[in-house]
Amino acid sequence: MNCIERVQSPPKNEPKISQIIPVNMGIEDMEKREETLFNETFDVITEKLTSTVNPDLRRVSDWLKKVLVYNVPHGKKNRGMALALAYQVLKKNKKLDSDKSHQARILGWCIEILQAFFLIHDDIMDQSLTRRGQPCWYKKEDVGLIAINDGILLNSCIYKLLKENFSKEPTYSQILDLFHEITDLTIKGQCLDMLNSTPDMKNNPAAFTEDVYSAIIEYKTAHYSFVLPIRLAFYLVGIVSEEVHAKAEEILLKFGHFFQVQDDFLDCYGDPSVIGKVGRDIEEGKCCWLFVNALKLCSEEQKKILVDNYALEDPAAVAKVREIYDQLNMRKVFQDYEDESYKEIKGLIDSFAYSQLVPLEVFNWLLKKIYRRNK
Amino acid sequence: MNCIERVQSPPKNEPKISQIIPVNMGIEDMEKREETLFNETFDVITEKLTSTVNPDLRRVSDWLKKVLVYNVPHGKKNRGMALALAYQVLKKNKKLDSDKSHQARILGWCIEILQAFFLIHDDIMDQSLTRRGQPCWYKKEDVGLIAINDGILLNSCIYKLLKENFSKEPTYSQILDLFHEITDLTIKGQCLDMLNSTPDMKNNPAAFTEDVYSAIIEYKTAHYSFVLPIRLAFYLVGIVSEEVHAKAEEILLKFGHFFQVQDDFLDCYGDPSVIGKVGRDIEEGKCCWLFVNALKLCSEEQKKILVDNYALEDPAAVAKVREIYDQLNMRKVFQDYEDESYKEIKGLIDSFAYSQLVPLEVFNWLLKKIYRRNK
Repeated sequence: MNCIERVQSPPKNEPKISQIIPVNMGIEDMEKREETLFNETFDVITEKLTSTVNPDLRRVSDWLKKVLVYNVPHGKKNRGMALALAYQVLKKNKKLDSDKSHQARILGWCIEILQAFFLIHDDIMDQSLTRRGQPCWYKKEDVGLIAINDGILLNSCIYKLLKENFSKEPTYSQILDLFHEITDLTIKGQCLDMLNSTPDMKNNPAAFTEDVYSAIIEYKTAHYSFVLPIRLAFYLVGIVSEEVHAKAEEILLKFGHFFQVQDDFLDCYGDPSVIGKVGRDIEEGKCCWLFVNALKLCSEEQKKILVDNYALEDPAAVAKVREIYDQLNMRKVFQDYEDESYKEIKGLIDSFAYSQLVPLEVFNWLLKKIYRRNK
Repeated sequence: MNCIERVQSPPKNEPKISQIIPVNMGIEDMEKREETLFNETFDVITEKLTSTVNPDLRRVSDWLKKVLVYNVPHGKKNRGMALALAYQVLKKNKKLDSDKSHQARILGWCIEILQAFFLIHDDIMDQSLTRRGQPCWYKKEDVGLIAINDGILLNSCIYKLLKENFSKEPTYSQILDLFHEITDLTIKGQCLDMLNSTPDMKNNPAAFTEDVYSAIIEYKTAHYSFVLPIRLAFYLVGIVSEEVHAKAEEILLKFGHFFQVQDDFLDCYGDPSVIGKVGRDIEEGKCCWLFVNALKLCSEEQKKILVDNYALEDPAAVAKVREIYDQLNMRKVFQDYEDESYKEIKGLIDSFAYSQLVPLEVFNWLLKKIYRRNK
């Protein structure tokens, strides 16, 4: 199925998307070109952020360069690229005074930096060992707990880049406010997740309900991964209506939910060589989709096995949990969820009332990117 | 000596400060009143920051309340009070459309929150045990490494307060930029301090020069402790000239240097029951004023003893370092520094060219507060 081809007929007065971007080739070519340009932009911002005229801070700048290069560019770059590409799609629909493609890429890197900041701290708090196929930053011999400060240093880079590149924009305050707001929601999501993983809750995994699960992933993941890139792209092309932002947010939060459920599924059933890590959600007693839904579907007997064996650093216990997952046919449950969720999101996109301002292509492209992904 | 009484004759057209604020009584009464109002404001902001309508985030809000109450209001509150009082002094000189005293107090608490955020993280990185007479936040049984996230949560509160209380101000972007800029400098100062405390440098304490020392304290302390409160007060009363801000910053950085040298002196020679902690700069091998200056003044023989015994967790080694300090008469060296520095700052204040805009009282009061302090 190719959802990009399913773009509905545009309302009157709206230019037909396919006239602007060739339905298939166009966006794929654009993706390749954007990826190259996006990667090149990382060198530009690193140079900017670490070239100091102040000799006192020479050592700090050299250190910051290491922090940036090690932690920022080795992920999938979904979030930053989503912004850069959303801008390309949106700008075709607009008469803009100037091309802000370069600014869009810088803003994309701001999101990647934001994520690197979260991950550095999360890895320390979770005592993780590896990230993106290399040792976690804090585990490196010459780093250690200074990594806490390095995380903040990265966060601070965002506001330096924003000031340097956006302070003359009419939407500067809105861009700042959005970064603050979404950072706040993400930290609160992390807090909720950690409060839910205290020993007290670990001893009581049955308290992992679907509502708790949905709240954690909405705050911890969906806002910064989906809402932030697209709303920033809106600001860049001058879409400032709160109503449009709110309606887009509603759809984007659904994307975030969908994406995280996939992530949880892949943690258990994905191919470690493809996803780049060995899943540990069961050992760590995470409030994850598979466990939450297995609890809903299981018999009393199965429940006892799940609860007794969850959150233990013991391969035999993990195997027992996986066995119950298999008995409950969780692969199929997930596939059904994925299909249902796809339909729901597609419906929301198709009924998005502001397609004159926002080409639906933005959402459809994003949906295509994540539907049935294996990494 | 009472420096407040030494306010020089004002230039023409400038209202004489003493006509506005009685030289002695006035500012002391004002201080007492402000202190009460400032403390009351903490409850207001805590309530605002933790009253959520979102049931998903109830647990997070309850947790945030604990974080705020434990970490924010138990310090000396010098920085927040400096802002609140500077505003009171500045506003007398201005025809303002509205009284922003309450806003000044909120902004003062933003600085106190910023400091709490730094301290929570610093304590984890330094593996400290106590802070402000109570266990460090991360050492509490139900906290641990979630404290990393709690620090960021506090930082995030600043921008919530700013948005809620200042987003309609014409200087909103400048206030945001100033918080970002000074947070960045402080983190870089912390980074410089930590890079200088790696084992490599610890084995080579002779590399602790006065230049390195001055850079660390300027970035790590002076900006957020002195420049930030006073420049924010300027924005509140509508003083936006970059020239005035730059010149004031120059003076305020001297205050910061002076203040940190005192801090370092008190770490070794202060009364633990008065300063609230037992100094550990020698054990921890800190790049501090006494050590840096002792290295400058000592003989080769004394230098060997200093270098061999610095940065060791051994009371005998600490005693040997202190003995050299005594031989070099570091108390006297400090007192001379304090007198010299007082004169230099007083000279800078007296020659501040913008006293029509900024009553010199602002600086003189601050100088009086810190000169010859014992805590």
